[in-house]
Amino acid sequence: MLQHTTSFDIRFSQAQVDQFAALSGDSNPLHLDADYAAITSFKRPIMHGILGAALFSRAMGMDFPGPGTVYMSQTLQFKRPMFVDTDYTVVLVVTAHDPVKHTATLSTEIKDKVTGKVCTSGEAMVMNVAVL
Amino acid sequence: MLQHTTSFDIRFSQAQVDQFAALSGDSNPLHLDADYAAITSFKRPIMHGILGAALFSRAMGMDFPGPGTVYMSQTLQFKRPMFVDTDYTVVLVVTAHDPVKHTATLSTEIKDKVTGKVCTSGEAMVMNVAVL
Repeated sequence: MLQHTTSFDIRFSQAQVDQFAALSGDSNPLHLDADYAAITSFKRPIMHGILGAALFSRAMGMDFPGPGTVYMSQTLQFKRPMFVDTDYTVVLVVTAHDPVKHTATLSTEIKDKVTGKVCTSGEAMVMNVAVL
Repeated sequence: MLQHTTSFDIRFSQAQVDQFAALSGDSNPLHLDADYAAITSFKRPIMHGILGAALFSRAMGMDFPGPGTVYMSQTLQFKRPMFVDTDYTVVLVVTAHDPVKHTATLSTEIKDKVTGKVCTSGEAMVMNVAVL
């Protein structure tokens, strides 16, 4: 029986954002340089949106449904920026499940933990190869 | 004048995949454990799909259109797995551009460099805040 929803809280540091920049090669100063970010509408560095999206992969790969999960697709709408040293809540809800094909569709969302405002939303489709 | 296409080659190591697992918290054994992956249809560990997607962020944030680029949305279809120690080509093509709003739509693709087969495809929408 597939659990229908999961959520967890997360907070990133600038050091983690710097690591992601090094790993991905995305050193856009908007993510790394406080002086540069200060002259944009964001006023301070924003996180890489894809680093937030990695949390959906984490949730699905680790426990929802868990190891053996393979990504089929993901849509991402980056509605509001994410900042370091800020608490966010990641929420996944299963919206469809095919027990024969071992596939599921989930809504995926990252919200500011305090304000509840949605930063990133989208839909994922996954298959679990561990049970094939 | 906006350039219409860009591409670059990339290759990841298992050490980089391990780093991404630590950073994202996604330690799905399908990405990290050769023995586990051996009993799946993939036969060997596959990369995190989102680590591939980070290359689109890199291309747009670094030079296409470059620093100051903000992600508005991204769709991702994971058609084939990506493996470490394998050469891939990342290709981005501008499909629409609004010079007044400083927004662009791009097709985004990762192909196996040797076979040309598409591993990841999708569409990105971005805004450049550096020119606002």
